[in-house]
Amino acid sequence: MAKSVAVILSGCGVYDGTEVHEASAVLVHLSRAGAKVEMFAPNTDQMHVVNHCEGKPTQEKRNILQESARIARGTVTDLAKLDVSKFDAVIIPGGFGVAKNLSDWAVKGKDYAIQPQVEKLIKAFHQAGKPLGMCCISPVLAAKALPGCELTVGQDKECERWPYAQTASVMKEMGCKHVNKNVGEVHVDVKNKLVTTSAFMCNAPIHEVFDGIGVMVKAVLELA
Amino acid sequence: MAKSVAVILSGCGVYDGTEVHEASAVLVHLSRAGAKVEMFAPNTDQMHVVNHCEGKPTQEKRNILQESARIARGTVTDLAKLDVSKFDAVIIPGGFGVAKNLSDWAVKGKDYAIQPQVEKLIKAFHQAGKPLGMCCISPVLAAKALPGCELTVGQDKECERWPYAQTASVMKEMGCKHVNKNVGEVHVDVKNKLVTTSAFMCNAPIHEVFDGIGVMVKAVLELA
Repeated sequence: MAKSVAVILSGCGVYDGTEVHEASAVLVHLSRAGAKVEMFAPNTDQMHVVNHCEGKPTQEKRNILQESARIARGTVTDLAKLDVSKFDAVIIPGGFGVAKNLSDWAVKGKDYAIQPQVEKLIKAFHQAGKPLGMCCISPVLAAKALPGCELTVGQDKECERWPYAQTASVMKEMGCKHVNKNVGEVHVDVKNKLVTTSAFMCNAPIHEVFDGIGVMVKAVLELA
Repeated sequence: MAKSVAVILSGCGVYDGTEVHEASAVLVHLSRAGAKVEMFAPNTDQMHVVNHCEGKPTQEKRNILQESARIARGTVTDLAKLDVSKFDAVIIPGGFGVAKNLSDWAVKGKDYAIQPQVEKLIKAFHQAGKPLGMCCISPVLAAKALPGCELTVGQDKECERWPYAQTASVMKEMGCKHVNKNVGEVHVDVKNKLVTTSAFMCNAPIHEVFDGIGVMVKAVLELA
């Protein structure tokens, strides 16, 4: 029987929302595997809006749900209505939206908190024994919600290819087991049914990110 | 040697800009083929902004280049600076941005005009003997710029799977040869080096759209 997967979005655009190519890859791979997908996003304003040409905040206000609908082609539901019992798994693509709208990681670093609605949902999927797939910066959500979990955000040594490698150090400081992985690989925390992959934490060609997310989706569905 | 491909965007979001999954598929397939990609978009305001949850216009103003940068992860150039001599091919993904920002098809139907900058570029690529790849609604640009060309926008009989089939009739009225094709197929107009595929003109699962765009990208690169 087809697996039902909830995908949680956080806007539309790498610097203030969901990374569109990560979301698209998740949807392509889920579709190919025959999964049923429903998308969700918080019905609140984004932390801010970034001019993606300049990388600088503007004075605009945008609603996370409405912007996520650009990825979802209109069909996205208020995250408040996500009923964990109706799904076999959850996947959260990356992008700064995760660090700005689903948590305050972008502002507070290791003293961050997860948006309460999101934290509750991650814990509920986990407690129900349902797998969680996260990529790019999304694994920081798991690090807080599931203390001591195993995950990857790519590599822990900073270089041109891995510009955000310090994230791995914070994951370790928080008591998680960080596992170095390349962009085409995932780490599966079998006990917690948590599947993570680095995606655009790696400065890699987009097709390698696409393929890594494909491995993540496959592993999530196998655990579901 | 790696082929250089210009990708023209028209915003970010199916109802008022570039369809994000079509753009993402174009970029993934070009990346896998080892092509060098540069993205471009007009540096002007969108025709309007659509709330993608409700499908209705809002009072906001957004700049096409800045919104396209959400897909381009920041790196997108003003279309006015596109130098045809530097590229081997051009690809234009679909979405209502093509019909609202790159032309006025969405407002005027068969009496539409192409945005002059875009029309000039399409003709310049064509005159230089360089291939053009277009999907979804983008082939309407070719229909106007390259009179009598052969193309596909999918099927010419409307049904649940092909909700926009009347577009094919207009293409025929304009003197083009419309060729019925399924979502995973392309039509190659060899004489004009024009490769078209239906993408989301078809109400198909997203991985079928992804694969059809892959066939388009491959055919464009073969002609380049």
